[in-house]
Amino acid sequence: MYELTISLVQGGRKPLYEQIYEYIKNEIREGRISSGERLSSTRMLSSHLEVSRSTVELAYEQLLSEGYIESKPCRGYFAAQIDGLYSIRPACADGQAPVKSSGKKYRYDFTPNGVDLNSFPYNTWRKLSRECLVDDRAELFRLGCPQGEPGLRSAICSYLHQARGVDCTPEQIIVGAGNDYLMMLLCAILGTGRRVALENPTYRQAYRLFSNLSFDTRTVDMDERGMRVDELERSGADLTFVMPSHQYPLGTVMPIRRRMELLRWASEEAGRFIIEDDYDSEFRYKGKPIPALQGYDADGKVIYIGTFSKSIAPAIRMSYMVLPEAVCEMYHKRCGFISSTVSKVDQLILQKFIEEGYYERHLNKMRALYRSRHDMLLAELKEAGPDFRISGENAGVHLLLHFRGARTEEELIKLAAQKGVRVYGLSEYYVNGAGPADEAVILLGYANMDEERIREAVRLLKEAWYG
Amino acid sequence: MYELTISLVQGGRKPLYEQIYEYIKNEIREGRISSGERLSSTRMLSSHLEVSRSTVELAYEQLLSEGYIESKPCRGYFAAQIDGLYSIRPACADGQAPVKSSGKKYRYDFTPNGVDLNSFPYNTWRKLSRECLVDDRAELFRLGCPQGEPGLRSAICSYLHQARGVDCTPEQIIVGAGNDYLMMLLCAILGTGRRVALENPTYRQAYRLFSNLSFDTRTVDMDERGMRVDELERSGADLTFVMPSHQYPLGTVMPIRRRMELLRWASEEAGRFIIEDDYDSEFRYKGKPIPALQGYDADGKVIYIGTFSKSIAPAIRMSYMVLPEAVCEMYHKRCGFISSTVSKVDQLILQKFIEEGYYERHLNKMRALYRSRHDMLLAELKEAGPDFRISGENAGVHLLLHFRGARTEEELIKLAAQKGVRVYGLSEYYVNGAGPADEAVILLGYANMDEERIREAVRLLKEAWYG
Repeated sequence: MYELTISLVQGGRKPLYEQIYEYIKNEIREGRISSGERLSSTRMLSSHLEVSRSTVELAYEQLLSEGYIESKPCRGYFAAQIDGLYSIRPACADGQAPVKSSGKKYRYDFTPNGVDLNSFPYNTWRKLSRECLVDDRAELFRLGCPQGEPGLRSAICSYLHQARGVDCTPEQIIVGAGNDYLMMLLCAILGTGRRVALENPTYRQAYRLFSNLSFDTRTVDMDERGMRVDELERSGADLTFVMPSHQYPLGTVMPIRRRMELLRWASEEAGRFIIEDDYDSEFRYKGKPIPALQGYDADGKVIYIGTFSKSIAPAIRMSYMVLPEAVCEMYHKRCGFISSTVSKVDQLILQKFIEEGYYERHLNKMRALYRSRHDMLLAELKEAGPDFRISGENAGVHLLLHFRGARTEEELIKLAAQKGVRVYGLSEYYVNGAGPADEAVILLGYANMDEERIREAVRLLKEAWYG
Repeated sequence: MYELTISLVQGGRKPLYEQIYEYIKNEIREGRISSGERLSSTRMLSSHLEVSRSTVELAYEQLLSEGYIESKPCRGYFAAQIDGLYSIRPACADGQAPVKSSGKKYRYDFTPNGVDLNSFPYNTWRKLSRECLVDDRAELFRLGCPQGEPGLRSAICSYLHQARGVDCTPEQIIVGAGNDYLMMLLCAILGTGRRVALENPTYRQAYRLFSNLSFDTRTVDMDERGMRVDELERSGADLTFVMPSHQYPLGTVMPIRRRMELLRWASEEAGRFIIEDDYDSEFRYKGKPIPALQGYDADGKVIYIGTFSKSIAPAIRMSYMVLPEAVCEMYHKRCGFISSTVSKVDQLILQKFIEEGYYERHLNKMRALYRSRHDMLLAELKEAGPDFRISGENAGVHLLLHFRGARTEEELIKLAAQKGVRVYGLSEYYVNGAGPADEAVILLGYANMDEERIREAVRLLKEAWYG
């Protein structure tokens, strides 16, 4: 029988039973008590250690629970057989943070992915958040509806109907924590082995997501009307991911004719669907908003995705998806049990934000703000240089400069960088990375630049590009 | 040329340009203006309609943007060719909500998935939420780190180290909106075609998720120590999903020997990993908590998943995953670009909740609350009937009754239901639905039942089962 020689610390940080438990555990782990060896009885050990018997019993119970010792009726406690099975990790491994090279510092950054957060309605959001936490209480912390709360879905439904011409019921809407998540969910709903075609250039995050989630991806070239449907047909795809109201990054608005060709393509075969990403349709500075493709869909072929990341704030993590009937059924069958990814509190805040008219007011404010930046940028650019034309204006929060000269995209970006201005090249939006064949195209995003900064940054660009 | 006969409403809800735009759009859509037909010039139409020329120009611009008309230089405007391509949906389809049959009403529900929300620390949560929204402001609404905010990950890291013996760095932690999401992400990280083995019975939601997300699933039988590793070896799996600290639904604690067998299995081949779901390890009523399997892992084979759904509230949607180094690399390569699914505000609230000691206090309170319900239920049951034994006690928020008699699970559930008490059968946790071969097993969850209700419900069960 194994005899313990353990020095217990009375009144220390660890209770006595825990000291005994840890000591014996280590003796067994390190093989000093060998497997099958009998341990002292609780009575003997307690008298040997001069502690109460219940202290020893507690230690033994814990060792029993974790399986270090076994109890045999009427015979006592024995060390379990664990030696030679596996070498447990000896000490804490010290992990290292991945070191990122700190980026170059720019004075001005024309990122096309910006959102102006100075205009975020903090006070309203805080007020609504307070109201939500006062109301309801327990109900707010119970697991909610997997699709999202019915109240929020109704609010989104009427917004989509009025603002985007989307024709749906709240039952077709799924609320999720961001577009990336919704696309992951969509992959789970539609099943593996799908062949999805994306525009080229496109939103590359979507391309990567589909590729990594077991979809068979391909790209289809665009002409001035958007994705070429003849090429789509030839691509063998049964899904297509498009941005008809305002293509990213080109800013193309898909005209009604191309929309109908696309819808006809989808209706020609049973398993075909169109994924419409309506990511920034809220911002249009000329005329009325371009209605969503979903509103024209007569055959239940369009899966519509929208987000509050662009129109409210990226970090609130709320997007939504409108599923046509057939896909809705697949969702309920295959994924209806997957819990919602958005907290109920956040859903309720957003519901109130929409219902009480704050969302519309916020959109109007942002539209006016972005419009004046858009106008200022256009005006400044018109005097900037002789060798580019502008496209993709009138909507969204970026525009494109197409250079006729001999300079490459890389040269233009580098010249701007030397003046402390960050601009973006179109080629990074091409899936093959090749970029447009016959011109250098630069993207300028203005969501994060106020008018003063736009004027100054364009002045620097002029210096950079025209000396 | 097509002549418009349109009655405009001056001073109505819709601006004049919009009335003209909609009129012409419908004429084109319905084929009354045929494709290629020339429209009046803006000058002629404005004088014909007696409106300003800019009003007509606005209408034409919108029609141009949407592609209903085309402009040919020096020749004017022509209706685009869209007829015959596709029949646009005529009117709003009225969706129907899926009708669910309203369930039977029970007076008492022993659901094993309960969480007591009356003890949710509303005031603290509200206070922290207010503090978070006052601080920081804009930074809180910018897109955050895909893995979760560093501050929250550090807080989770030290909690896991102290409370669960998990050995990791914040860089290995991914925060996500619930376990379902984390498992979806894990599938994307590990790639398709994986063969995953689950315990039988198991948490069936995990089984369904893996199956639907293109994993090849199988089950492995359990003995009294947990998953049988010899069967796991034969199953051909390269992944296994286990709950070593407290198996759901059986409540088995995996002893150290079996843990080492499992770790050895994983270390024998390069691509093998163990997914440890530590879903309710916070609640143990006897001795110390059982340490996590992850803490014993010397070879980077354990993917650890934990959640705040059980320990705080289901609707806050926050879970976390600790990835071993090799899987961390796969994550950064394949999924590092996927945005976080939890809002920054919620992450900051939770971080403060942990850092300022509220989480520990809340856990202690809940442990005491559940312990007294557990003790009361055990005491009441001990006097309840002669023909069952109890298992799975001492931890979690449910226990199991194993009936020796001839009665089936179905009979026992039905008898209880007749008295207004809802109890749950073990067979629904078996993947094949067969249940245990030689006994009827009933699950009783007590998280949602206070002591008074437990006493009353057990009294009713006695009446139901023993008359």
